[in-house]
Amino acid sequence: MGLLGESLTQVLIPASAIIGIGFALLQWFLVSKVKISSESESNNGYKQRLIEDDLEEEEEGVERANIVAAKCAEIQEAISVGATSFLYTEYRYLSIFMGAFGLLIFLFLGSVNGFSTKSEPCAYNTGSMCKPALANALFSTVAFLLGALTSILSGYLGMKIATYANARTTLEARKGVGKAFITAFRSGAVMGFLLAANGLLVLFLSINLFKLYYGDDWEGLYESITGYGLGGSSMALFGRVGGGIYTKAADVGADLVGKVERNIPEDDPRNPAVIADNVGDNVGDIAGMGSDLFGSYAESSCAALFVASISSFGISHDYTAMSYPLIISSMGIVVCLITTLFATDMFEIKNVAEIEPSLKRQLLISTVLMTAGIAMVSFFALPSDFTLFDFGTAKDVKNWHLFFCVSIGLWAGLAIGYTTEYYTSNAYSPVQDVADSCRTGAATNVIFGLALGYKSVIIPIFSIALAIYVSFSLAAMYGIAVAALGMLSTIATGLAIDAYGPISDNAGGIAEMAGMSHKIRERTDALDAAGNTTAAIGKASLPWVLQLAPLPLYRLPCLVPLAGIKAVDVLTPKVFIGLIVGAMLPYWFSAMTMKSVGSAALKMVEEVRRQFNSIPGLMEGTVRPDYATCVKISTDASLKEMIPPGALVMLTPLIAGTLFGVETLAGLLAGSLVSGVQVAISASNTGGAWDNAKKYIEAGASEHARSLGPKGSDCHKAAVIGDTIGDPLKDTSGPSLNILIKLMAVESLVFAPFFAAHGGLLFKIL
Amino acid sequence: MGLLGESLTQVLIPASAIIGIGFALLQWFLVSKVKISSESESNNGYKQRLIEDDLEEEEEGVERANIVAAKCAEIQEAISVGATSFLYTEYRYLSIFMGAFGLLIFLFLGSVNGFSTKSEPCAYNTGSMCKPALANALFSTVAFLLGALTSILSGYLGMKIATYANARTTLEARKGVGKAFITAFRSGAVMGFLLAANGLLVLFLSINLFKLYYGDDWEGLYESITGYGLGGSSMALFGRVGGGIYTKAADVGADLVGKVERNIPEDDPRNPAVIADNVGDNVGDIAGMGSDLFGSYAESSCAALFVASISSFGISHDYTAMSYPLIISSMGIVVCLITTLFATDMFEIKNVAEIEPSLKRQLLISTVLMTAGIAMVSFFALPSDFTLFDFGTAKDVKNWHLFFCVSIGLWAGLAIGYTTEYYTSNAYSPVQDVADSCRTGAATNVIFGLALGYKSVIIPIFSIALAIYVSFSLAAMYGIAVAALGMLSTIATGLAIDAYGPISDNAGGIAEMAGMSHKIRERTDALDAAGNTTAAIGKASLPWVLQLAPLPLYRLPCLVPLAGIKAVDVLTPKVFIGLIVGAMLPYWFSAMTMKSVGSAALKMVEEVRRQFNSIPGLMEGTVRPDYATCVKISTDASLKEMIPPGALVMLTPLIAGTLFGVETLAGLLAGSLVSGVQVAISASNTGGAWDNAKKYIEAGASEHARSLGPKGSDCHKAAVIGDTIGDPLKDTSGPSLNILIKLMAVESLVFAPFFAAHGGLLFKIL
Repeated sequence: MGLLGESLTQVLIPASAIIGIGFALLQWFLVSKVKISSESESNNGYKQRLIEDDLEEEEEGVERANIVAAKCAEIQEAISVGATSFLYTEYRYLSIFMGAFGLLIFLFLGSVNGFSTKSEPCAYNTGSMCKPALANALFSTVAFLLGALTSILSGYLGMKIATYANARTTLEARKGVGKAFITAFRSGAVMGFLLAANGLLVLFLSINLFKLYYGDDWEGLYESITGYGLGGSSMALFGRVGGGIYTKAADVGADLVGKVERNIPEDDPRNPAVIADNVGDNVGDIAGMGSDLFGSYAESSCAALFVASISSFGISHDYTAMSYPLIISSMGIVVCLITTLFATDMFEIKNVAEIEPSLKRQLLISTVLMTAGIAMVSFFALPSDFTLFDFGTAKDVKNWHLFFCVSIGLWAGLAIGYTTEYYTSNAYSPVQDVADSCRTGAATNVIFGLALGYKSVIIPIFSIALAIYVSFSLAAMYGIAVAALGMLSTIATGLAIDAYGPISDNAGGIAEMAGMSHKIRERTDALDAAGNTTAAIGKASLPWVLQLAPLPLYRLPCLVPLAGIKAVDVLTPKVFIGLIVGAMLPYWFSAMTMKSVGSAALKMVEEVRRQFNSIPGLMEGTVRPDYATCVKISTDASLKEMIPPGALVMLTPLIAGTLFGVETLAGLLAGSLVSGVQVAISASNTGGAWDNAKKYIEAGASEHARSLGPKGSDCHKAAVIGDTIGDPLKDTSGPSLNILIKLMAVESLVFAPFFAAHGGLLFKIL
Repeated sequence: MGLLGESLTQVLIPASAIIGIGFALLQWFLVSKVKISSESESNNGYKQRLIEDDLEEEEEGVERANIVAAKCAEIQEAISVGATSFLYTEYRYLSIFMGAFGLLIFLFLGSVNGFSTKSEPCAYNTGSMCKPALANALFSTVAFLLGALTSILSGYLGMKIATYANARTTLEARKGVGKAFITAFRSGAVMGFLLAANGLLVLFLSINLFKLYYGDDWEGLYESITGYGLGGSSMALFGRVGGGIYTKAADVGADLVGKVERNIPEDDPRNPAVIADNVGDNVGDIAGMGSDLFGSYAESSCAALFVASISSFGISHDYTAMSYPLIISSMGIVVCLITTLFATDMFEIKNVAEIEPSLKRQLLISTVLMTAGIAMVSFFALPSDFTLFDFGTAKDVKNWHLFFCVSIGLWAGLAIGYTTEYYTSNAYSPVQDVADSCRTGAATNVIFGLALGYKSVIIPIFSIALAIYVSFSLAAMYGIAVAALGMLSTIATGLAIDAYGPISDNAGGIAEMAGMSHKIRERTDALDAAGNTTAAIGKASLPWVLQLAPLPLYRLPCLVPLAGIKAVDVLTPKVFIGLIVGAMLPYWFSAMTMKSVGSAALKMVEEVRRQFNSIPGLMEGTVRPDYATCVKISTDASLKEMIPPGALVMLTPLIAGTLFGVETLAGLLAGSLVSGVQVAISASNTGGAWDNAKKYIEAGASEHARSLGPKGSDCHKAAVIGDTIGDPLKDTSGPSLNILIKLMAVESLVFAPFFAAHGGLLFKIL
């Protein structure tokens, strides 16, 4: 037994979750102190505040400031309404899916033993009796629904805080870069902590509730808890794909007509697609990402718990050791809380150049602190010596072995994050080379960008391989599972940085739309540059979510004990055909999502062109464009287009498992994993690099950058083309692939008892 | 025993090879009947011929025709000199590599048993004695050198006939499409038959010579023969990569300045890079491809022979059954010969629209005839019943089982070829959609093109999976090996079609350079369109070489019996890290080759710009540009840049095998295979589709196409950007990946005895 008692564990986990939620609310309160005018507030009070708070504002008329602030509020309102209405529509569709898929889970798993209500002998804890398959079916379904609802809640809350923070960041930017940075970063932190804490709390409560029924049958308990991960990830799939198509259809459509044909700036209010574009940022980059990260978190915890339940912890019923994955997450919340204070309170950002180091420092601080945290947790929560099962053979493990497993995952994550930053930030030579290649036109820009993306997979893959090898050697499959958890333990900080990107991007958009660049030219020019650079940095770490790519590693192993096969030998044709078809799936999936973005963007282009041609006074800015039609086009397209890729992901494991059996399915998962990781990383980084190459030329911060610019030069035009191509790569197909891999694996895990009982029909018939 | 006796087999194989060589020479003779003026011929004789042969030519002055023909001859001479000089330089470097690598093979394999000269017990044919490892080392080295030399010869001969045929095709085009088609196709056939027959003959002779020493030790004999495949493929690697970089650096460089900046047509003689571009077509698309296909052919034969040698054929010394792979190739030569007659003699091409169906018909005819041929061979050469070994367990196989294995490979190849054609020919909707997306600019063109490439992998992968499953079920690993041979059995026809593309492309270039479009406007306009369309069709089937991608399938299995491991379980971390790193290699390799093309193209752009700016009279066409400097830039860049990707491919298996051992190596090969196939197919098809989308707009053959054109419209410009991006994808990185997969596998096979004896150093130390 470890030093930490069961009752203390029972208190510490929910306590840290509640601390996390409290901290998130505190940050929200701090952000809300930035007042913006809205119809519910009196204009007087607003004027008052502006005069009091912002003494530097004196050189511009109060009238003017008032108009601008009112405009910001109006735009924020429009974005918020659009985003909320899209999410409600999406959730209506998703609730039908949840019901249908929940029923499917119940029927498939219930049929394993012919819906019998009798207890069965356990699969691993031989000699004991476990609950009937029917109970597992029921509880898996409940867990699935809980996971799905929590995922939806996470996305929704993220979107709410983001739309709440956009205009506030814009207004704060008038006071200086530091203020704007803190507002955007705090808002990101709200989302990060809410998600991490919520996920932990719901999971903890579910386990305790399920335990009331399952009692000592931990095998059954944690097997059904995996449904929670499936629920989280399946919502994430549609959130990512639907949101991704929405945002990129609007973005590409707006850019192609506005920037390229009409020569008006990005985010110009005359562009009819501009509101749809900004709504897209919130539903895709924020709500979709929120669901996605929650899904990863839920899945990785569930899988680690399941592997633990069939180890000696589960058999000897050591509750604290069993809860090791949850305690790590609890520690993560505390560590991230301290880390956040470094950014918001301990250091002050004075100029733009300090932002990027500050964000990078966040990653490093959280990693260092977390390493100490893991050491503490491993020492207190685990027995110093215990037994794990490696495919039936017992393996003796020490507590410091697990410390190394979690840590190597954590540090591999840092290495991947820093590599991503190196390849996508315009402070380093790779992006500068891509920008330079724009001299000879769009074609070389694309060739260099693709090559950069391909190259950027090398270090991440070696890091992943090393982490797998070390953690497996130390603690078999459980080691890999907790290594993945290590990567995710600082999720709150990671998410704060991720959300910071779209929030400051949107803030820049609002500044443009509110016409802030007219009278107060000098200050808004600085703001523009700051907005550009900060957004660029945010975007550079956006693919940081790719840390999550290695996560599925431990899901594949999970499949095996469940399904009762001993080896997945690539030299048997059953496995090999799975492997090669699995490696093809990411391509099929990407083809679908990219084509969807392309078609939806074409529709958007037609509508935007139609409005420019048929609404008199639009180009002159005297008449408002019809934003609503563009919002509708994006909404309809994304809801319609998310079905085929969604079906591909959800049906493939079911078909492969039912017709071809577990061995082919295992090959399929391995294939999609090893191929999908490469496609996802290279697509995201290529897109990020193009985006930042364009921003590099626009910002003109160095001699070299100025030689390529200014905006509107041939070089810049070539860079815009690259940026547009990168949009669906980095915001739609790249991130969705992450879910493709995860979701197919966890779905296989949930349905594994069914496949083991009834799978491989085709081979049985032949 | 089969019905065919040993002595008859000994006669039939070389006989069919000699027939193939004879047929190739006949085709060469027919092509050479098209006379072009050259300094060795009297101008008089030439005039005479033109007047006699070409009565329709009367409306243009004989003087003019004479000048044009002389110009063609001059250009052809320049291209031929450039290509020959590049190949000689390349071969000088390669001979150093051959020497060094041959020594490496000898030392590694010789060290297996400490350079002992004593006989050893056989690994499979238990109870017998086999020749010492030192002998295998020596003969493997000799086989390696033989394969390398044959590969070089194949590439060189291909280049010679192609440069010989270019201008002849141009001149024949003046008489009509049918004549031009036959000239280009005959030239392609010369190359196809020379390669197939030469490869077979050298292999046959080597086996018979080696047998003088090995006698009854067939295990050792065929093990050392695998060196032949390694030699062929390693030369192909450098041919493909070096040639690919050469041709695309020149092509991209010429296009970027000429077409985009200076607005002069493609292949305009004023462009200083134009000769380098045309030389590139011959050294990359022709010589590189020749070496590549020869390498595939050699490897697949060697691997099939090796698997056979450790089956019952080898143990009972049934020479005819043992030679089944060679007899299939012999039958292939005969079948292709008949197939060629359908194109050149039985049907006559009257207009452009008939060309594409005619080429497609070639594929179908050869497949149907070959199926009958395989049935004959299987019935006569094989015993009706025999034993194969499937990882030590005996498997009873009938002769018609093998018939099915070879046939399914053959037909899967046809399915892949037709799919490729569907996705890359501008006669079908996928390419037309890509062309249509150019309306909204280069960005949507690129997005649609990438999506098309991703989508085009679906059917090939399912075909490959089906072929593997069926052939393995019927005849274990030997089944997969002969299925691969089935795909390659019609190599002569495939190669003729492949070579047809660059030859007619070059012919179009010569027409442009010779200024044929000035006076005889109407006729050359038709020629231009024909040239464009025929080249497009040729290019559409160029990725047909991707049929070869499934080939490596049987190499992985080969590794296993050799190295003495029983299973490659992806759930062991040793294998899994190999798998994921292997899946990364195609990306690393592509990044290298694409970046190389990009950098070389930039250098070319600078030189071309320099010449346009500093040579007065160049734009006006009064002064000849300095072609030689551009040729030198391409030559130097390609020779320098081919080293890093070459080193990656050649060193990876050696490092992985020596440090991590055979299991990691097997995982690495499986990973690079399943991931590389996808990257290669999608890259080639994306590039092909962009090329043909551009040609579709230029040709303006339909209402829709005309609405997108003409040349120089915004739409066309967007299409040109896509085409330029596609160049390195389809002609450098895509085809080279094929070799990456093949070569790493065959290298592992050759070095396997060493890895089995001394590999896995790192794990042994830990």
